[in-house]
Amino acid sequence: MGYPDTTDAFAVTDIKKWSEFTRKDLPLKKFEEDDVDVAIDACGVCASDVHTITGGWSEDIPLPLCVGHEVIGKVVKLGSKVKDLKIGDRVGVGAQIGADLTCENCKRDQENYCPNAIDTYGAPYPDGTIAQGGYSSHIRAHQYFTFKIPDALDTALAAPMLCAGLTTFSPLKRLGAGKGKKVAIIGLGGLGHFGVLWSVALGAETYVMSHSAGKRDEALKLGAKEFILTSEKDWHKKYAFQFDILLNCADATDRFKLEDYFSTIAVNGHFHMVGFPDKPLPQIMAQAFAPNGCYMGASHIGNRPEMQEMLELAAKQNIKSWVQTIDISEKGCKEAVERVYNNDNVRFRFTLIGYDKVFGKRA
Amino acid sequence: MGYPDTTDAFAVTDIKKWSEFTRKDLPLKKFEEDDVDVAIDACGVCASDVHTITGGWSEDIPLPLCVGHEVIGKVVKLGSKVKDLKIGDRVGVGAQIGADLTCENCKRDQENYCPNAIDTYGAPYPDGTIAQGGYSSHIRAHQYFTFKIPDALDTALAAPMLCAGLTTFSPLKRLGAGKGKKVAIIGLGGLGHFGVLWSVALGAETYVMSHSAGKRDEALKLGAKEFILTSEKDWHKKYAFQFDILLNCADATDRFKLEDYFSTIAVNGHFHMVGFPDKPLPQIMAQAFAPNGCYMGASHIGNRPEMQEMLELAAKQNIKSWVQTIDISEKGCKEAVERVYNNDNVRFRFTLIGYDKVFGKRA
Repeated sequence: MGYPDTTDAFAVTDIKKWSEFTRKDLPLKKFEEDDVDVAIDACGVCASDVHTITGGWSEDIPLPLCVGHEVIGKVVKLGSKVKDLKIGDRVGVGAQIGADLTCENCKRDQENYCPNAIDTYGAPYPDGTIAQGGYSSHIRAHQYFTFKIPDALDTALAAPMLCAGLTTFSPLKRLGAGKGKKVAIIGLGGLGHFGVLWSVALGAETYVMSHSAGKRDEALKLGAKEFILTSEKDWHKKYAFQFDILLNCADATDRFKLEDYFSTIAVNGHFHMVGFPDKPLPQIMAQAFAPNGCYMGASHIGNRPEMQEMLELAAKQNIKSWVQTIDISEKGCKEAVERVYNNDNVRFRFTLIGYDKVFGKRA
Repeated sequence: MGYPDTTDAFAVTDIKKWSEFTRKDLPLKKFEEDDVDVAIDACGVCASDVHTITGGWSEDIPLPLCVGHEVIGKVVKLGSKVKDLKIGDRVGVGAQIGADLTCENCKRDQENYCPNAIDTYGAPYPDGTIAQGGYSSHIRAHQYFTFKIPDALDTALAAPMLCAGLTTFSPLKRLGAGKGKKVAIIGLGGLGHFGVLWSVALGAETYVMSHSAGKRDEALKLGAKEFILTSEKDWHKKYAFQFDILLNCADATDRFKLEDYFSTIAVNGHFHMVGFPDKPLPQIMAQAFAPNGCYMGASHIGNRPEMQEMLELAAKQNIKSWVQTIDISEKGCKEAVERVYNNDNVRFRFTLIGYDKVFGKRA
């Protein structure tokens, strides 16, 4: 076997040995008229990959599994209905690879909330094939979930925008981040650093909240106006009613004193989560929301128009993700996921590269 | 002593005997130039009164305490700075009686979120006097928190609008309830019945969710399009992604399966709480918000413009609260709070009346 029937993948075969990757051929879904085949050149390493392969979000995952949903590569095959793309185009695929595109949510550009959405890896296609991600030679994607990458963007830097970038851009846009608004990004990691970049690019006065004093310089370098150290006693008191939006990019929310964070939100403002802990949120009283009429919520990636707007904004304003690259291999994949798991000096995102060296030129 | 130094009040003296009211004189705050003295004619009985006197929200309440924050009466004395009111005017006082009126929140018409807000009863004034509520002969209120009642509204029916009415009207307005929106009111009690009345009056397609089948007819009579019985198995499945707003008026949220309610919310819609349980909310995963990007929050009453708009809307559309009246007395107060506590056939709100018989004509 081999492409076009299978993809040559680095796969996890056991959640107890979640950082041991085995190279093997995994089946691709049947090629259909809306499909685009992509020869992969780079893939970002997302905290979701780690939550998934460690069984943190669910122990019921299909194995063997190839993760990775920040994929960039070249188009090598086009279905008969595919528009606006041609062979050789540089394209990206994010964390969603399918939707019914006919339901009420899809009709309103809310395909990221389609009840029949298909995740880029680990989800079953209608034909039973399990979708496999970007730590592999090829991906087969529906054209609606395949995005042309603007020429101005570097491949390794653009890859993590496809999930981490969109996941932070979408709620900032929807909640109105922009001129005259105050935004605080909580947690400066892969997601958080995009939160700062977008919030600043959109014109909002941007702050970083972190429990780790070591992130101060980086927060300011990324464009934050101020760094707020949340491990200090009474840190929140000075910021009562200040922020229109708290974008919580940390996945340690289960250990937060939520009331302290809420107290910094302006009247009717939002505490919006994009990092999801493996454990439940702390228990709170309904009254915790009442002193400022604030809201808590979360979101799931973003929609196609937001992806396109984000990529254009990045190209136009020359926004650069902070990325370290690692060559793809059993060893490279292992290093990447272990360092993300251990929060071991990741500044702020890994992109797997060097695909041609492993998989050959695919064209 | 007596008015103008004190108010002749039915007060609770012990939270362990929370339904035993004792008639006694309680001090009024010093009369100042913005103050309005009101001879009370009616007062609604709010679930907050019961949560307070039973120690449900906090066991640390000042005693003796006279509750009641849905007050209507006649103006009997005016401070030198009071505008727009004259002696004899029929006015109302709701659940807030003071604020600094100078902070950033107050400047933006968010005085209900003023950090120096003063609750109508149980809160200390700057001079140390404890504010006392409407189960009494008189109340002294700042003019900003005193509202002229439109002539078209009946006193006993208007009284509960001052807290329960405003508490439900404000979030519906702020969340955009109106034509083209679908709203579900959860819990058909004192708050919930106002939720239905306002939502219908504002033009939204309005539903009632309740675990009690006995509320169906009343829900429909109030103007709901449909009644949804939440004690039925899989009740929520039919309503996936349907509602822009869930206005939760129940105070049993600690026993809700929140994920089921959330699943009925449209993309980026709101689960908004105005009924506050004595116990914490159920623990949930951050992911619970992700399938539709929904938000959970709460609010605290409403602001002055919203109060005025609500009263005008009620007058204009001839909206009638469902009220049962009880004559004020030790016995009357006891019956009212016990029946609210036991949820004993309250349809849907009690108003204490007959003040002249007990306190005499005060003018």
